Amino acid sequence: MRGEPSRPGEFELIARHFRPLAAKYPGALDLGDDAALIEVRPGWRLVATADALIAGVHFLASDPPSDIARKMLRVNLSDLAAMGAEPLAYLMTLALPSDTDEAWIAAFAEGLAADQAQFAIVLAGGDTVATVGPLALSLTALGQVEPGTELRRNAGRAGDVVLVSGTLGDAALGLRVCRGELAGLAPELRALLVQRYRIPEPRLALGRALVRGRLARAALDVSDGLLADLGHICETSGLGAVVEAGRLPLSPAAQAALAGTPQLIGDALGGGDDYELLFTARPSWRGRLRAVQSHVGDLPITRIGIVTRDSRLTVRTAEGDRDLPAGFEHFR
Amino acid sequence: MRGEPSRPGEFELIARHFRPLAAKYPGALDLGDDAALIEVRPGWRLVATADALIAGVHFLASDPPSDIARKMLRVNLSDLAAMGAEPLAYLMTLALPSDTDEAWIAAFAEGLAADQAQFAIVLAGGDTVATVGPLALSLTALGQVEPGTELRRNAGRAGDVVLVSGTLGDAALGLRVCRGELAGLAPELRALLVQRYRIPEPRLALGRALVRGRLARAALDVSDGLLADLGHICETSGLGAVVEAGRLPLSPAAQAALAGTPQLIGDALGGGDDYELLFTARPSWRGRLRAVQSHVGDLPITRIGIVTRDSRLTVRTAEGDRDLPAGFEHFR
Repeated sequence: MRGEPSRPGEFELIARHFRPLAAKYPGALDLGDDAALIEVRPGWRLVATADALIAGVHFLASDPPSDIARKMLRVNLSDLAAMGAEPLAYLMTLALPSDTDEAWIAAFAEGLAADQAQFAIVLAGGDTVATVGPLALSLTALGQVEPGTELRRNAGRAGDVVLVSGTLGDAALGLRVCRGELAGLAPELRALLVQRYRIPEPRLALGRALVRGRLARAALDVSDGLLADLGHICETSGLGAVVEAGRLPLSPAAQAALAGTPQLIGDALGGGDDYELLFTARPSWRGRLRAVQSHVGDLPITRIGIVTRDSRLTVRTAEGDRDLPAGFEHFR
Repeated sequence: MRGEPSRPGEFELIARHFRPLAAKYPGALDLGDDAALIEVRPGWRLVATADALIAGVHFLASDPPSDIARKMLRVNLSDLAAMGAEPLAYLMTLALPSDTDEAWIAAFAEGLAADQAQFAIVLAGGDTVATVGPLALSLTALGQVEPGTELRRNAGRAGDVVLVSGTLGDAALGLRVCRGELAGLAPELRALLVQRYRIPEPRLALGRALVRGRLARAALDVSDGLLADLGHICETSGLGAVVEAGRLPLSPAAQAALAGTPQLIGDALGGGDDYELLFTARPSWRGRLRAVQSHVGDLPITRIGIVTRDSRLTVRTAEGDRDLPAGFEHFR
């Protein structure tokens, strides 16, 4: 990890706060070499994913630095989870505005440390540079998976059931709270929604259980929104799907929000950033699901629809069916 | 590779210009999945490095997009070269200002395509996002090396000779030209220096030859400047070094610049961004060097000094020796 000081002493700040994050990983070479050495388990395959987050676009510069760090790490971990991979290590680049102080860097590193412990991943390398613009973060997460077992988007088949983990719409509703909406909701529910928006839960244990339990056919994580992401599965699999709106899993906070404003169901159908796993499974899925469920504790897994042979994506509601056009990005 | 549109049609632009860069790599999964699958040669070890470049800090937003792309790729390839690794694939994140047009993206992708062909590396994944600030690029390069043969910074020993590839100081002098200095130099020499600054040459063939020919003990690439980087080797190896200023390899363009202004030797000693390989070798190095040299064509490899037992870094000139303090970043 090379540091380029934007002010005297930054080399030392980086060393003080980031080197400990790499200390337990011999291949990180104490962040002192040109590159890191990564050990993939013999016979397994490396999985790699990268995402960028920019202040003022993906988060507010005033957000808690620990939350920013954890979101950056977790959105990448969620991509590993969606492929059924086990985390190995990550590389991160930070472009820091010149007014970034040591307290900010310390809190950012603390967020990473907490999540490293929780998700068994370590810092292996990266770069710190100065920027004349907003804080810009980029993270590459490396994981490993048994070859041939990785979960893909294009593996759905007509007749598969559509399953989703956790609850949907919380992150989109949390963003509304951040913007000052949903003022009528109880403060503790508002806080829960904001938490879901700020710090997603990568479903790594579920991803591994889906691989081991051979439950999922196609899979991905819900980052663009349920319908957009189900659209990705349908498009790459050459199929369609019917989603039953009444079956969407909603948190108590989301249920409370929808009780006042039923049209907020659009946040569960179209809102992004939930980072739940969305996957399809063959019709005889119930037995395998019980085995998978035993590895993921309380995390609910809900059947919300079915994969169809035609290429339409249909939302079934009490008022009837609604077909969605190709490219579902703008549904809400 | 996920694209987040900053304007309608950006998904299509990314697909049109970036997907072809990944087409030859099956593990990139056509940039359509959550992560890429990377095959490391059985028994080899993965090498990973990441760097960020920001417009207005590391390059000018008005620089040719093709040059920006190639510099971004090459500084990372240089890190692979410094470890003696073979390139495999890269992941890239781009934060694009809202006024980025398709011609810019097309030219950027063309620069990547040219270098992919030259250096046998392919795009495997990444992310494109919008930014409210300057263009921000981050790239993670993945390579592979036979375990135990990777080149490290900390492997120098007292009595090793210090060797460097290519010529030194060109990039720092090229930056001067960009800033309007060195106006007295012939235009073709000025252009050569600017080229060296804008588009470094990663010494991948040399890195591999150093590994195979067992020539190098400690190695790194000259990115911070000769003395700073030799300082990194000395510091991690717990040793010192003597550099003979009269032996520094200088290009004809640098020689012409120094003929007018001898103190510009400071650019060869302290200027960064040359991306040559700096390495130490055991005293009986001459035979091995001949074998290595046969794999790198015309690239000169020059002995410029020796590793010493004390922890001082000394520059030997016609006027005598000059000792440098610990931490050589500010020498120039």
